[in-house]
Amino acid sequence: MTTESRIYTAALIVIGDEILSGRTHDKNIAQVASWLGVQGIRLKEVRVVADDTPAIIEAVNTLRARNDYLFTTGGIGPTHDDITVDAIAEALGVGVEVHPEARAILDGYYESRGGLNEARLRMARVPSGAELIPNRYTGAPGIRSGNIFLMAGVPQITAGMLDALSGTLEGGALLLSETVGCWIAESEVAELLASTEHAHPSCQIGSYPFWKDGRGGANFVIRSVDADELAECSRALAGALEALGKPAVAGGI
Amino acid sequence: MTTESRIYTAALIVIGDEILSGRTHDKNIAQVASWLGVQGIRLKEVRVVADDTPAIIEAVNTLRARNDYLFTTGGIGPTHDDITVDAIAEALGVGVEVHPEARAILDGYYESRGGLNEARLRMARVPSGAELIPNRYTGAPGIRSGNIFLMAGVPQITAGMLDALSGTLEGGALLLSETVGCWIAESEVAELLASTEHAHPSCQIGSYPFWKDGRGGANFVIRSVDADELAECSRALAGALEALGKPAVAGGI
Repeated sequence: MTTESRIYTAALIVIGDEILSGRTHDKNIAQVASWLGVQGIRLKEVRVVADDTPAIIEAVNTLRARNDYLFTTGGIGPTHDDITVDAIAEALGVGVEVHPEARAILDGYYESRGGLNEARLRMARVPSGAELIPNRYTGAPGIRSGNIFLMAGVPQITAGMLDALSGTLEGGALLLSETVGCWIAESEVAELLASTEHAHPSCQIGSYPFWKDGRGGANFVIRSVDADELAECSRALAGALEALGKPAVAGGI
Repeated sequence: MTTESRIYTAALIVIGDEILSGRTHDKNIAQVASWLGVQGIRLKEVRVVADDTPAIIEAVNTLRARNDYLFTTGGIGPTHDDITVDAIAEALGVGVEVHPEARAILDGYYESRGGLNEARLRMARVPSGAELIPNRYTGAPGIRSGNIFLMAGVPQITAGMLDALSGTLEGGALLLSETVGCWIAESEVAELLASTEHAHPSCQIGSYPFWKDGRGGANFVIRSVDADELAECSRALAGALEALGKPAVAGGI
């Protein structure tokens, strides 16, 4: 198997009561998904769990075993409801230790901000043996423990941590995509979509209907790791839509 | 155990490659979560899975067994990538049938829209024995199969289906919440938060830091089913913040 044909997968666990209560609208799923795509890694599954140790442990142990990488967001701050580090250490069967470099980073960051108190020192705690992921915004680093990456819950900080990880993870062939938009009901072209997908075995076609300005339409997203077949499939679909008298909009509507 | 003390739980499965690719930002988690809260039902866990039958079956069978209700969004349209009905029927070990009422609804809806073709008729298929959830927008109904509720992926349509279900599900005591905002670093008050929570056993306090206009602050969200203790806990926290010389903003910042 060549490097190009191996598919690398990841899972994401979003940790936080605030997502499950509806108070906070998650922004990390989409940003982690998009970032993984660029790394040649496919996001296979996401779970949102409460600030609850057994729930975190169950999700961590299931997902880390069947994916190349596991990301978590949330629960690595200084307060009593931040339990991710302890839960993951328990899931891994290891202890928790203060990481000396994390402590030094926090010492520097809080020097002019009232000093390192007990709560702030919590953010230097990592599962034993873990490494740090830099956070240029607030000092407190993310954590890499084996194939698990513990990231912040605040999306801007997560973004910075992802940025720090860019290009450092082994990935496979990029999953490429093209979008064809059309002012047509997807139910008029369901058979066409299925037959076009069938004729291009490396491609998947997703159909995403929408309503805009009182009119219905759909975007058809074609995905493939094969650039030539992707282009051919996209061309075939656009041509078939045009033949029905419906202009196909490259890039989507 | 009185009706008030029984906690009703739900899980949600968001089905769709478009969420996992990062192309579409999910809006259903927050809206389902908020709606459930008003029904006296707690959203315990969410999974996002691909358009993949085994993945759907695994999530459905795990989550329906350990929650009072299970909701799904996505995959009930007319195209080849809409596999939710078949996957759930397989998870339940039942067949798939055309629901006569759904067929009649679709017949009426498509009468002036080109008629009911094979793809559109797919939207009348339900797991055997299932009931319908009205959809006032596009005709195609949602589906209730035992304790599983199959909803649309398009958020506006999901909203209409939730609206149709409002008040029809048995729930427990409402989880009430109050928010206290403060221009303070959460790491300065971590101990205060923990001790305040500890002193009010029915309350949980969540701490949600933010940065706004170049300043850091945090919102503290207190949740409880007991209105009196909630008010007391909220008052105690606000008083303690004021005692530190930091104004507490009722309702959050």
